[in-house]
Amino acid sequence: MLHKQFAISALPSSIEADLRHKIDTKTKPLGSLGELEHIAFKLGKIQQTLTPDVSKPKMIVFAADHGVVAQGISLFPQEVTPQMVMNFLMGGAAVSVFCEQHNVPLRVVDVGVNAELAPHPLLGARKVAFASQDFSQQAAMTSQQVALAIQAGVDEANMAIDAGTNLLMFGEMGIGNTCVSSCMMAALIAVSAADSTGRGTGLDQAGVSHKAQVIEQSLVRAEQETGQTRSSWSAQTLAEQLGGFEILAMAGAMLQSAQRQTAFVVDGFICTVALLFAQKVAPNVSDYAIFAHQSNEKAHKMLLDQFNADPILSLNLRLGEGSGAILAYPLIQSACVFLNKMASFESAGVTDSK
Amino acid sequence: MLHKQFAISALPSSIEADLRHKIDTKTKPLGSLGELEHIAFKLGKIQQTLTPDVSKPKMIVFAADHGVVAQGISLFPQEVTPQMVMNFLMGGAAVSVFCEQHNVPLRVVDVGVNAELAPHPLLGARKVAFASQDFSQQAAMTSQQVALAIQAGVDEANMAIDAGTNLLMFGEMGIGNTCVSSCMMAALIAVSAADSTGRGTGLDQAGVSHKAQVIEQSLVRAEQETGQTRSSWSAQTLAEQLGGFEILAMAGAMLQSAQRQTAFVVDGFICTVALLFAQKVAPNVSDYAIFAHQSNEKAHKMLLDQFNADPILSLNLRLGEGSGAILAYPLIQSACVFLNKMASFESAGVTDSK
Repeated sequence: MLHKQFAISALPSSIEADLRHKIDTKTKPLGSLGELEHIAFKLGKIQQTLTPDVSKPKMIVFAADHGVVAQGISLFPQEVTPQMVMNFLMGGAAVSVFCEQHNVPLRVVDVGVNAELAPHPLLGARKVAFASQDFSQQAAMTSQQVALAIQAGVDEANMAIDAGTNLLMFGEMGIGNTCVSSCMMAALIAVSAADSTGRGTGLDQAGVSHKAQVIEQSLVRAEQETGQTRSSWSAQTLAEQLGGFEILAMAGAMLQSAQRQTAFVVDGFICTVALLFAQKVAPNVSDYAIFAHQSNEKAHKMLLDQFNADPILSLNLRLGEGSGAILAYPLIQSACVFLNKMASFESAGVTDSK
Repeated sequence: MLHKQFAISALPSSIEADLRHKIDTKTKPLGSLGELEHIAFKLGKIQQTLTPDVSKPKMIVFAADHGVVAQGISLFPQEVTPQMVMNFLMGGAAVSVFCEQHNVPLRVVDVGVNAELAPHPLLGARKVAFASQDFSQQAAMTSQQVALAIQAGVDEANMAIDAGTNLLMFGEMGIGNTCVSSCMMAALIAVSAADSTGRGTGLDQAGVSHKAQVIEQSLVRAEQETGQTRSSWSAQTLAEQLGGFEILAMAGAMLQSAQRQTAFVVDGFICTVALLFAQKVAPNVSDYAIFAHQSNEKAHKMLLDQFNADPILSLNLRLGEGSGAILAYPLIQSACVFLNKMASFESAGVTDSK
């Protein structure tokens, strides 16, 4: 049913030659702006213009809690999720100060935090439940909750795009959500739990092993409950069994962003898992994705390879929150700046190479 | 004689514990801001403060020509150097548009362009000569010209720092200057010309081989002329025999920047060679260097290893001009922003990890 909700067409290629010509006649050696040239090309293609524009960005951080933290898979207690939401809203978190630095509006959306949150101008109240269920013991959520979480993302993307946003950035907060992401990844691309599991916010080797064990146990539990192998699950079944509210909301927002021809920025590991899920729903969604950073989380490289992605930054970040996306934003801007503002060999009267 | 001009002391380590504590008590998992934490730490140490500030940056691009282009070692003709200087001044070059994007003042300094340049408010007129000599045939410059080129950099650094600049960024323009840099590198760290030579602005394999040949021939010529092996040359001798005016000016600016406890940003391959030369003059200079990007030029990785440097960006750039430095600037800012503005676990009431 999920795939019927989204119709994302492949991007037309008719503009490619003109974009290539414009990039190649700028006053610089051919190809010498490296990755920025790829980003400029991609943005031009997404926006179907030779003058792409990312001057109206928006950062949306989706927050939720996860029942599986009962299994002791995170260094931080669950109470940190609402505490960090407050920190986002008060301007003290990493994503807050970086958004302020780049003058990017920040919105935090509660899709499942395990606490009552007081209203705040920057807070979107779209709580689906007070945390998902512990998926090592039972399905993470109901079918209706899957729909609500995805719709929360769709509605947020629509609100932003209706207000003129031309670049969406997504972040997440939820204690335990690298565990949820590793679990979803293992089901989505058929890797072992051991391969999809990493240190999260800083687990030691014993902690990582335990987390991988909980994940494998959860996958087996879900296979028994559904009577299907993990590789044959639909997106809907996967989401019900092993999803997380903020991850599904991000996937919904990505799908809607793509449906409305709006580029979006993929942050680190968790965000890339959300894209992988979205791709299962609508394969063309990744045509609209700009990959911000290669995270320090072990499995992220493997995930990025699924998209042939070479992210903009590689700063050994492992923070989440959309911090990699907002740090990459000035470089995405720079891609537009060079395409829109640099002189050409002809306009500047500079002799091209032999 | 050069080393007597600069007295750069090692940075005091007394502030390290306080800096580490401040970084580690921010509301984020320990170490999760990766490279940004290293930059914040380094800037705090350079400025000897817990609140480092890079809000007054300045980009200085040094430009010069090189006699060795007569040997056909570049894809672009020499006339491109003054053309590109004009392009910088008119705002159409990559470094110009990126400086404008980040509101960073740009200054272009002629230390040896092979053309008369009309006065311009952004242009520093410090021409040492109309290009260096072809060092495959004779010494690149006189002893006095070495001193003038270095002094040009010293004077520029002083002017900027006197005006309040708290972060210097350096760039360069000069057709043929990857060849000069590869040659200086081969002499400075005793690698073969084949290992220090790369594609520059886009040479093919035959072009690279020819360039390496010219470099080796120049090194042998200089050994014969000085009666010394390349590894025993003083900085002064190396500069006279095989230097480039803009590279020596950058080295002078770096040395003076360090002498005045001011951090500076190292752009790509050519800029890193300038730092290597500066380090031969005063070993502590690299304590003040922030490495902006890993260039696509083959030998750059080997050079960076000399400094145990892990640059901020790796975007496959091979443009020069200081483009990597200015693109990295917002991330250097972000390092200060997180250190100065993020909440601590205590101030935000967030529970730290177990």
